[in-house]
Amino acid sequence: MDIYRLSESINKLGHIGYVEGRGTSRMAYSDAFYKGRDYVKSLMEEAGLTTHIDAVGNLTGVLEGSEPKKIAIGSHIDTVPNGGMYDGALGVLAGIEAVRSLKEMNYQNRYTIEIIAFNEEEGNVVGGTFGSKAFAGAKLEDSMIEKMAQYNMTISDFKSAKRNGKDYLAYLEYHIEQGGILEKINTEIGIVPGIFGIIRYRVVVNGVANHAGSTPMYLRNDALEKSCNFITDSYNMARKKNNTMVCTIGVMNIEPGAVNVIPGRAEFVIELRDKDMTDMYEVINELQEKYAGDSIEMTKIIEQENTVCSPELISLLKECAEDLGYSSATVYSGAGHDLINTSMIMPSALLFIPSVKGISHHKDEFSKNEHIEKGTKVLIEAIKRIDGGDYDEN
Amino acid sequence: MDIYRLSESINKLGHIGYVEGRGTSRMAYSDAFYKGRDYVKSLMEEAGLTTHIDAVGNLTGVLEGSEPKKIAIGSHIDTVPNGGMYDGALGVLAGIEAVRSLKEMNYQNRYTIEIIAFNEEEGNVVGGTFGSKAFAGAKLEDSMIEKMAQYNMTISDFKSAKRNGKDYLAYLEYHIEQGGILEKINTEIGIVPGIFGIIRYRVVVNGVANHAGSTPMYLRNDALEKSCNFITDSYNMARKKNNTMVCTIGVMNIEPGAVNVIPGRAEFVIELRDKDMTDMYEVINELQEKYAGDSIEMTKIIEQENTVCSPELISLLKECAEDLGYSSATVYSGAGHDLINTSMIMPSALLFIPSVKGISHHKDEFSKNEHIEKGTKVLIEAIKRIDGGDYDEN
Repeated sequence: MDIYRLSESINKLGHIGYVEGRGTSRMAYSDAFYKGRDYVKSLMEEAGLTTHIDAVGNLTGVLEGSEPKKIAIGSHIDTVPNGGMYDGALGVLAGIEAVRSLKEMNYQNRYTIEIIAFNEEEGNVVGGTFGSKAFAGAKLEDSMIEKMAQYNMTISDFKSAKRNGKDYLAYLEYHIEQGGILEKINTEIGIVPGIFGIIRYRVVVNGVANHAGSTPMYLRNDALEKSCNFITDSYNMARKKNNTMVCTIGVMNIEPGAVNVIPGRAEFVIELRDKDMTDMYEVINELQEKYAGDSIEMTKIIEQENTVCSPELISLLKECAEDLGYSSATVYSGAGHDLINTSMIMPSALLFIPSVKGISHHKDEFSKNEHIEKGTKVLIEAIKRIDGGDYDEN
Repeated sequence: MDIYRLSESINKLGHIGYVEGRGTSRMAYSDAFYKGRDYVKSLMEEAGLTTHIDAVGNLTGVLEGSEPKKIAIGSHIDTVPNGGMYDGALGVLAGIEAVRSLKEMNYQNRYTIEIIAFNEEEGNVVGGTFGSKAFAGAKLEDSMIEKMAQYNMTISDFKSAKRNGKDYLAYLEYHIEQGGILEKINTEIGIVPGIFGIIRYRVVVNGVANHAGSTPMYLRNDALEKSCNFITDSYNMARKKNNTMVCTIGVMNIEPGAVNVIPGRAEFVIELRDKDMTDMYEVINELQEKYAGDSIEMTKIIEQENTVCSPELISLLKECAEDLGYSSATVYSGAGHDLINTSMIMPSALLFIPSVKGISHHKDEFSKNEHIEKGTKVLIEAIKRIDGGDYDEN
């Protein structure tokens, strides 16, 4: 493989929608997005792939094989507003580079290799992982139907993008970690056994608003003080439960919101993410028990099941990394990916490389060429082994 | 004294600016305020007082005595938006009732008795305790000058309202507690040795905003988690310092404010109030020391000195309550009052009666007739004793 060629394509795509000092904005259906997709399409065609764009905007490039089944390599090419150059783009561009490399080494693929650039993974326009949802025939959410109409897409368009999982041997997604674990443990390759499930609860803490001067501490029912205890407990319970769970309170509001009035009400959202759902609900139950009768209401607003990657593909990726002499570690993905949908219809696996300082969705998002090269080599090796029959078809 | 007459006047004044279900809104310079002041003026005149309105809107009613000096009884008749019927109004109306009672018992006052209805104590329009600031010749703040202009008042108007403290023997303010201590300890009369000083700091807590899924707990620098520790410590340090200090965080904002992003910045205002300044600054120092090097910035935004009431007047009020057979207790005022200004130019003292459930600045603000009557009797007795020479002029 040619790391300079790959690096150049990452850089070129990364500058489509780029604003100095702000980052790359290539949200789905924007002008920059279409320009970027045209660029990726041209790269696919240069690599000898037959391209196709489906009714929801997913771009695929196909290298025909002799056997009917397909190996899919994919990720997305849309970004968040003011995002980075690596999130999503790496997986698509490294897939194209893998095909070029295989061709250059005169590798004859038995199975068809399909490189997929999913549309609208970031969910800025229609909804998160919209393109791969259509691809996998996932449920179309009501909120998405409305937004699709704004972009002249119908429910039939969504349905027409559906693929048959039985046509595929495997889906591999190669992505930057978007976190700081691999860097922290000084490891080159992350093997991802699954994507965290997510639960979110809206928490309303009721107290009594009162005069901040004339109400002594012992007569207060301060919604913020109760909230601080609850929030601190949430973090600590999550830490204690296992070493993967994360707990975040990212939005919070206190009322009435005056410097000289004791908060009578606080509202925030607690988000837990972990590799399986049971531990998270245990934390929620612990919180509910501890704060029962304390005028704290907890309402579930989101539950997203965790995703389990194919154990066979995970083993295969691990062996590839080992055989290539790269250090690897098991890391869960705390962020969602298109793989959440592909895993519903075909064996799927996720490969990470380190993100410098763990920064993502930001202009400073960066992964080193050294890591990009090693990850791509693992990807190529995995394609060859799957294509060669090392990997047993499910 | 006639508690029914007093109660009726409280009720009548309380219904000027009243909206069912919301409370009384009689903010300074509003139509309701002028209507309310006219009513109070008419009550003063019925009681045989000579009325006068100064250039900033303070209303006084004077009962001439034979000696040149004056005894002042005052409070305010403006309210907060959607406030109650007792805050301020009680002190003015009970003062008028005191004069009526003294006249009905054919009491001949030696000193002139002046009932004062200060304007704009609540600070909704020009600034807190504006009327008594002018009366006492306090510093006119820049922010007030601008707002005064909107109501056609000049700096000269402010200056013209200034009185000479040497003309007064004493200022007595009779007020509802606006807190729940007297009710809690089942006591009829609160003797107030002073008004809390106030300090406020803006606190900015810096962390690192990051992806809520892909950043493990041990790699986080969560501004909200640090804030919760800081806030909890603030409350506990205030409690530990002494049994009067109160600590309030009434406004708080976290950024960037998304459910799936770890807070990178939190900003809030910590307010301490206590009977003297030293203890509060000790708490601030403890916090600064404990959180030094933790990327927490604290900036002082307000310092208001505590007010010390006249010890002689306090003793006199205490004796009056005792001699009348009423239970009394020492309670500090956590809320500001016009007395903050009068105390700068003359001996001043503050008398409280219980507020039901400690509620104030609210339609449910309420004090029982039983307590109103006892407080008024203490006030009358105090006037008689000061007038009679029991109280040594400072």
